Amino acid sequence: MSGRLAVVGLGAGSAGWVTPDASAALTEAEALYGYAGYLDRVPPRPGQSRHPSDNREEVARARAALEAAAAGVKVALVTAGDPGVFAMAAAVCEAIEHGPASWRALDVAMVPGVTAMLAVAARVGAPLGHDFCALSLSDNLKPWDTIERRLDAAAGAGFVLALYNPLSRARPWQLGAAFERLRRHLAGSTPVVFGRAIGRADERLIVTTLAEADPANADMSTLIIVGSATTRVITRDGLASLVYTPRTGELGP
Amino acid sequence: MSGRLAVVGLGAGSAGWVTPDASAALTEAEALYGYAGYLDRVPPRPGQSRHPSDNREEVARARAALEAAAAGVKVALVTAGDPGVFAMAAAVCEAIEHGPASWRALDVAMVPGVTAMLAVAARVGAPLGHDFCALSLSDNLKPWDTIERRLDAAAGAGFVLALYNPLSRARPWQLGAAFERLRRHLAGSTPVVFGRAIGRADERLIVTTLAEADPANADMSTLIIVGSATTRVITRDGLASLVYTPRTGELGP
Repeated sequence: MSGRLAVVGLGAGSAGWVTPDASAALTEAEALYGYAGYLDRVPPRPGQSRHPSDNREEVARARAALEAAAAGVKVALVTAGDPGVFAMAAAVCEAIEHGPASWRALDVAMVPGVTAMLAVAARVGAPLGHDFCALSLSDNLKPWDTIERRLDAAAGAGFVLALYNPLSRARPWQLGAAFERLRRHLAGSTPVVFGRAIGRADERLIVTTLAEADPANADMSTLIIVGSATTRVITRDGLASLVYTPRTGELGP
Repeated sequence: MSGRLAVVGLGAGSAGWVTPDASAALTEAEALYGYAGYLDRVPPRPGQSRHPSDNREEVARARAALEAAAAGVKVALVTAGDPGVFAMAAAVCEAIEHGPASWRALDVAMVPGVTAMLAVAARVGAPLGHDFCALSLSDNLKPWDTIERRLDAAAGAGFVLALYNPLSRARPWQLGAAFERLRRHLAGSTPVVFGRAIGRADERLIVTTLAEADPANADMSTLIIVGSATTRVITRDGLASLVYTPRTGELGP
């Protein structure tokens, strides 16, 4: 059986962040699967079939890619960012665990990439320079109560927070509720960064504070970083501010 | 003034993970600064000066790179993984904040990369497929008590944990103490992954459980992932097991 499946992370929006391993996996593939918006970032190649799907069909997409690989096709399943961070790698593993026994014998490889929080952090300085958490605000697959408990635990223990999937048309209130929750633990002056479509032509970066943070500045293409009590902002004449979290620092009493 | 500073992440060990942006920043640089072990990963280029330093001289190295940039040199400060995750970007920001005013006027750019936890996760499946924390176990720059409180908070709230800087010759007991602490919150059957030098020729991957996890399998080149209560292991005949954390799941009572 010659089929195989590579789950490929393109990195956040910029072509400059697509790794050589990711490029090689895309070149070698006979069939590309993925959300249509991500497939659009991959240059066409003759003889390679393309199978775009809707953004919310993650398990169906994983199964379709595995079926093709099991039939002998060299498949690349394309994701933005890193496939292992709130993306397709977990959906593929879920499908393997619950699918036919033959899928466990498949050659499956995950190709890592620059996930959104690293791209946003790099643009603004080093807000993830110390201990941090990555948390999805989507309550499609877990209860909101669990998300609140994680916000409490992370902010209370001095982790910086990277918030994925902050809101969507179907989930309009979650980011505002998360900011409210975090204000119980963190001062209003805590730095907050909104990074939208980082690396793309329509990239937008906002540095603000927890007191001023406006959920209306976010959409599903936005990654939000909420600092800890030690996160600092360096203002610079005529240049963007730098936001960073020092490598030192006690949690406090 | 034509000087500038790029803080460049080479990604974890493999050349296949060096992004085009990182390669371009290295090519354009007139001077390379960095830990000697990381500079060794950059092919020599005529006319480019190299300034290797010891691993523990982070602030001195940041200052030296900033001084060179302020003097008009195009500098690349080289790190492994991502510069913003337990690496040099925060040290550079610290040096800028506390350095001469002229350093605030410098052109400084962070070039993101595939940090170790993403590389280890990709090798083994998708253990970071749901909410997770990244935590340094080094108590050189923060009290051990703060680390214990963060381990408690993260494990207690159902985050997967990625542990950086697990131990060294000067800090031999920290990883064992962290496992002991985590056993208060997590079952002995919780999956644990040791990823050493991932992407390099001497790469080594161990999948075990929290009950069996042996700190002797780690060194300073090792990244450790400790699962949550929902993390699963898929065994496969003749192939490495897949470890993943489903995208679903409640925290529980």
